[in-house]
Amino acid sequence: MKIAILGFGTVGKGVYEIVKKANVQTQNLSVSHIFIRKNKKRVLPEMTDDIDEIMNDKNTDVVVEALGGIEPAHEFILSALQHGKHVITANKAVIAVYLKEFTDAANENNVKFYFEASVGGGIPWIQGLEKALRIDSVNSISGIFNGTSNFILDQMTRNGQSFAEVLKQAQKLGYAEADPSADIDGIDVANKLCISADIAYNINIKDRSKLPIFGIRNIKKNDVKFFEKNGYSVKLIGTTHQQGNKFDYVVEPKLFLNHTLEANTPDNYNLISLNGDTIGKLDFYGQGAGMFPTANAVVQDILDIVEEKDHLKRNFDQKMEYSPELTSGDYLVRSKADIESLFAEYAPTQEGEYLLIHQIPVGKMHEIMKDVLNVDDSSFMVSLPSNSSLASKGSIRSQEAVA
Amino acid sequence: MKIAILGFGTVGKGVYEIVKKANVQTQNLSVSHIFIRKNKKRVLPEMTDDIDEIMNDKNTDVVVEALGGIEPAHEFILSALQHGKHVITANKAVIAVYLKEFTDAANENNVKFYFEASVGGGIPWIQGLEKALRIDSVNSISGIFNGTSNFILDQMTRNGQSFAEVLKQAQKLGYAEADPSADIDGIDVANKLCISADIAYNINIKDRSKLPIFGIRNIKKNDVKFFEKNGYSVKLIGTTHQQGNKFDYVVEPKLFLNHTLEANTPDNYNLISLNGDTIGKLDFYGQGAGMFPTANAVVQDILDIVEEKDHLKRNFDQKMEYSPELTSGDYLVRSKADIESLFAEYAPTQEGEYLLIHQIPVGKMHEIMKDVLNVDDSSFMVSLPSNSSLASKGSIRSQEAVA
Repeated sequence: MKIAILGFGTVGKGVYEIVKKANVQTQNLSVSHIFIRKNKKRVLPEMTDDIDEIMNDKNTDVVVEALGGIEPAHEFILSALQHGKHVITANKAVIAVYLKEFTDAANENNVKFYFEASVGGGIPWIQGLEKALRIDSVNSISGIFNGTSNFILDQMTRNGQSFAEVLKQAQKLGYAEADPSADIDGIDVANKLCISADIAYNINIKDRSKLPIFGIRNIKKNDVKFFEKNGYSVKLIGTTHQQGNKFDYVVEPKLFLNHTLEANTPDNYNLISLNGDTIGKLDFYGQGAGMFPTANAVVQDILDIVEEKDHLKRNFDQKMEYSPELTSGDYLVRSKADIESLFAEYAPTQEGEYLLIHQIPVGKMHEIMKDVLNVDDSSFMVSLPSNSSLASKGSIRSQEAVA
Repeated sequence: MKIAILGFGTVGKGVYEIVKKANVQTQNLSVSHIFIRKNKKRVLPEMTDDIDEIMNDKNTDVVVEALGGIEPAHEFILSALQHGKHVITANKAVIAVYLKEFTDAANENNVKFYFEASVGGGIPWIQGLEKALRIDSVNSISGIFNGTSNFILDQMTRNGQSFAEVLKQAQKLGYAEADPSADIDGIDVANKLCISADIAYNINIKDRSKLPIFGIRNIKKNDVKFFEKNGYSVKLIGTTHQQGNKFDYVVEPKLFLNHTLEANTPDNYNLISLNGDTIGKLDFYGQGAGMFPTANAVVQDILDIVEEKDHLKRNFDQKMEYSPELTSGDYLVRSKADIESLFAEYAPTQEGEYLLIHQIPVGKMHEIMKDVLNVDDSSFMVSLPSNSSLASKGSIRSQEAVA
């Protein structure tokens, strides 16, 4: 099987290397083309800047899109599918927007569109979710989907550093981009959450303007200290629930007791959990990114095509309604603004520097926080575990972890 | 596809229930027979005590062996394969002995022999390992394979209870058998470890007499207290390494720093990790047992047969040598016997009630412990993390977790 790789960055290079491995060579795979942009130097014979040469090559069976971004990735993926080529990608941004369009094009052209590497990097999350769905209804998904923000929060917690210090460190280590917004503002988490929800509920989340997202941009050293003092670690979490034909989704910082799996997910690791009615809670844990873990997931998809191991059939045509009131929770808010009146309906109590909001619908909380940020754009909020004594008694104390 | 279930205990019942689920029904599966022993009451129409009726039924495509134990499970599995039926089992004890024989019989009769549920219950461990092996060499596997012993150790750590108290509790909850030896003496872990090593290295571990096993039967409340005071949790771990054509394997209690995934694996959960050369460390975590998680794994195997998704081809014919000196480690030993001279070669130092042994080959450690147990059969030992300051400085203090 001949493979064209679009792009030769981290993922592209990794795929190129792995295809040469002995184990993989037994499957008769080879890289026929590597698409690079016009101004790049052609350091390998397979390199070309002529996309049409690749699309029109009848011998190319599989296209690996490793350019990233929305365009021209979107255009190239569609074109490849329409030219009867299987497509594999790790590009969560383009999939979060075009999953149904790509899937429909793949079905129409009798080829495969696979994307294991797009959520959770090397962790077999998509396949795990799809396999669970063969038997169970999956009514919730939750997790640490983004390694960069997890690295930042983990370092702040362990070393007491400031957000700015750790962000700089992360950029030096290559864990964060020069522009880290996608990671720290929760956009990357939102993309991966939407892909996961689309698959779990067989829906097509198109309008994300109502998706509540609150990232970690405003977190301070003292926030982390306060949480730690009370036995909690803070993580950036993506969550979705489904009930009947309603679903919700949210990206926000959340507190976890120190015994929990989430609290002990270190560095740039990911942890993604699903809940199925017979399997119960199933957790997927590992390195969500990095050259070889991600490239490994891409090659796993290539091997599924070679071995004709079809992925779950989805049309993404179920009609479900986003419900901002489906779940409620307790929150801590820190703001210089005078916010107590905004939350009056939810019996707020003062906890040190923070306001504790009781049992507020998640959508409402995020809506009010938009107003809060307009007055004080350094405000921060965090969601509490549903069973915390904080929730029930209005006072913070550590408690035993729930098994 | 028609399924015969042998046995109607936890797993058998669970499979029967799941096959009736809507999602699964779309695959046209039905249970045609349930084999029960002669003295059991026939509460369902599918029940029969005539094994030949099942074996000779040309309409039965798949046999699920859910009897447990070695015989007649071994005989029935072979017979079913030789009658041209696919076989699925969760029975780790029989697989640990007969994996190659079953696999050869399946190949000869052009049918499948699948056993996802035998290691890690509902956790997709076998499939995860096999998938990793499509690309990587897996040179080590390690984990908490047994939920019962993990429950016991976790309760002792959290509640300061004695081993006897918690064992009784586990038996009441159905987590431990009336005869708990397989769980507390590490036999169950050894079975699952051998199955995993067979698959990872494509070998056939037949002679297990040299497999070093030390269980948790002798652990005391004060051991757990001492470990905790020094920032450690104790877990019962199965580990295997491979280097060239040598491999090792061991089952023993091991200490983990409090930040680690292992230390935070609670209750009866399992955690199994592999190391692959491109994927790095991959962890599988969840409930290792229970009616529905285990039955879910069995039905996943049935669906793989329906969907013709072949598992990794293995002949288990690689020749590798068990090497008891492949890895070395540090150990703490508690014994009423006078043991310092036995370990003289390994620079033992006293740590409170314990002797700290430095860098002793694992096989040697277990060999000497056999002698120690002959003098004092209540002796206990535990392996230390390789990077612990205990190892390097001969003194115990907590240290920061290694990411």
